Amino acid sequence: MLVNGELKTSIWVDSDSSVWIIDQRWLPHDIREIKLATLDDFHSSISNMLVRGAPLIGVTAAFGLASHMLHDSSDEAIKHAYDFLISARPTAVNLRTGLDYVFSRINDCPRDNRAEVAFAAATTFRNLEIEISKEIGNNGAGLIKKLHQQKNRQINILTHCNAGWLATVDWGTATAPMYWADKIGVPIHVYVDETRPRNQGAQLTAWELGQNNISHDLIVDNAGGHLMQHGMIDIVIVGTDRTTSSGDVCNKIGTYQKALAAKDNDVPFYVALPSTTIDWRITDGHKEIEIENRSPDELHYVQGLNSRGKIDTVRISPQTTNALNPAFDVTPARLITGLITELGVIKACPGAVIEFHPYNS
Amino acid sequence: MLVNGELKTSIWVDSDSSVWIIDQRWLPHDIREIKLATLDDFHSSISNMLVRGAPLIGVTAAFGLASHMLHDSSDEAIKHAYDFLISARPTAVNLRTGLDYVFSRINDCPRDNRAEVAFAAATTFRNLEIEISKEIGNNGAGLIKKLHQQKNRQINILTHCNAGWLATVDWGTATAPMYWADKIGVPIHVYVDETRPRNQGAQLTAWELGQNNISHDLIVDNAGGHLMQHGMIDIVIVGTDRTTSSGDVCNKIGTYQKALAAKDNDVPFYVALPSTTIDWRITDGHKEIEIENRSPDELHYVQGLNSRGKIDTVRISPQTTNALNPAFDVTPARLITGLITELGVIKACPGAVIEFHPYNS
Repeated sequence: MLVNGELKTSIWVDSDSSVWIIDQRWLPHDIREIKLATLDDFHSSISNMLVRGAPLIGVTAAFGLASHMLHDSSDEAIKHAYDFLISARPTAVNLRTGLDYVFSRINDCPRDNRAEVAFAAATTFRNLEIEISKEIGNNGAGLIKKLHQQKNRQINILTHCNAGWLATVDWGTATAPMYWADKIGVPIHVYVDETRPRNQGAQLTAWELGQNNISHDLIVDNAGGHLMQHGMIDIVIVGTDRTTSSGDVCNKIGTYQKALAAKDNDVPFYVALPSTTIDWRITDGHKEIEIENRSPDELHYVQGLNSRGKIDTVRISPQTTNALNPAFDVTPARLITGLITELGVIKACPGAVIEFHPYNS
Repeated sequence: MLVNGELKTSIWVDSDSSVWIIDQRWLPHDIREIKLATLDDFHSSISNMLVRGAPLIGVTAAFGLASHMLHDSSDEAIKHAYDFLISARPTAVNLRTGLDYVFSRINDCPRDNRAEVAFAAATTFRNLEIEISKEIGNNGAGLIKKLHQQKNRQINILTHCNAGWLATVDWGTATAPMYWADKIGVPIHVYVDETRPRNQGAQLTAWELGQNNISHDLIVDNAGGHLMQHGMIDIVIVGTDRTTSSGDVCNKIGTYQKALAAKDNDVPFYVALPSTTIDWRITDGHKEIEIENRSPDELHYVQGLNSRGKIDTVRISPQTTNALNPAFDVTPARLITGLITELGVIKACPGAVIEFHPYNS
């Protein structure tokens, strides 16, 4: 996708095999490109959230393991790198997927070839992520186009958090249908939820869409229901961190409230996801997914650009107030119109999802 | 209510008849008491939101009109002051109520006595507001006490925005039942919605509750639904800016989403209000109440205390992003369990509300 008019991805390899990322902590105010050289660089880019978003974390970890083999491809070094990288964000499923993708390909490989094979595997893993996003985009854009044909006017889309190209490698998940719809000439406008407490909507999604000339407005997380009451939203598309085999969706805190508002106003509510994020081990998202409470400081302190043009942080709450900060919520399948995957748009109900179980095919 | 251990109200008169307020724009970081001397002082305290909250605006305007008569009690001066003050916030119904309360009492008054009569009227108007809040508190605390008797544990309350003593003169509307419940020994804990974009929950409600030793946690506006799914909220109590004769409630943006979540989880949802805020002229809140879109800058910029201990403002969104900022929403009566008024707790349905129409009694 475009950044200052140039095509970019969230992670790339330059001619000397060094891996580069965008340090997303300073967006939208500052675009800092960072070269990841050591194993520590890769680990801290994940743990300190220079990169975030499940697919991007997976790709970064894959490159981390492969890059380390360029320096040391002994069994011990590989095991150490694997264990160290997986500890960077313990709950991220894709992290393990990325590492396993690389690791499984060097299993029977002579030691001398390991680094080359691993690096090629990481590159393939990255490119597959892009293809998955593109297919999600294509499938989701079909839905938007159909709405446009029905209503014969611009289609207004609401999204929550950042499931954009910054969270994947390119295109994104929830944003992929928007970029595709725009590319095939369907007029759209996107309402972007600010997404407290970390403001990924305000800082990342709004920035992405602006850079790619997609018409959009930032709104507070409180406003979506009101806009739906007034017929100002035609479709909601969000991403997900985990989806159960029954179609319950775990996503950024606030998604559930948006799904309730969509239901109350007959607005279709879609979740865009790679089929790999479906967790086949669990069926009841509400009971089986434990929701992490993150640091209260994410609420108390807000980062932005101060009047002197410097990135600074201000405290908004009283010093003595405590905060409770659940990071995700679970939207039950009954509130979800469908899941937009790389394989097609499916219903969020047990039968439909199970059909896509990789072990069933 | 308590501020640093001392009993305070949001507007008071000292021994030489000068009127004082707390400049609420700097809370919770700085408690600035301001003396309002001139008509301009009163006007700008309302228009620049040093004071906010419908009841407090009404009382401030009443004192503004009365105070001006101390300087000039001619018919022209009174008319000028009335018109000037009512222009401070055109949509605030209570502003007119406060001015009319004072104005109606000096109608047949000899000019020499006007100032004294007006000032006494403004004082009465202020004290009546306190009595109304207390009665709301008493009636609402009854509901909380009943829940406590049923569940035999601490009662967890969720509130949105600031309908606290800072928005009235003392006690508040939505907070009054909390302060009363605490006073009569019912154990409570309050979850305070941050309330983007102006953060009244984080900056005012959390501060109020902390100062009065009420157990509470700040949460983002996105979190309430999740907490309700997990049985962590027993009752929701919010305030309102306008309520229709059919029980539809116009309140701070985001209230509707919270009411949907309450309905979906069988959590009782109450609105606390002086019966005077019921708008008898309208029946359909959704169609008949026009929602003001406020400045996008309320989203883009966030105020707080920076690392050097100074109050500063940071921009969170890209410079080129536009924002849409509807200030209120309308929660339909079907989602509301009841209205807590100074006259009693009533159902939010046409018949029940109409019974309280002042012209019916």
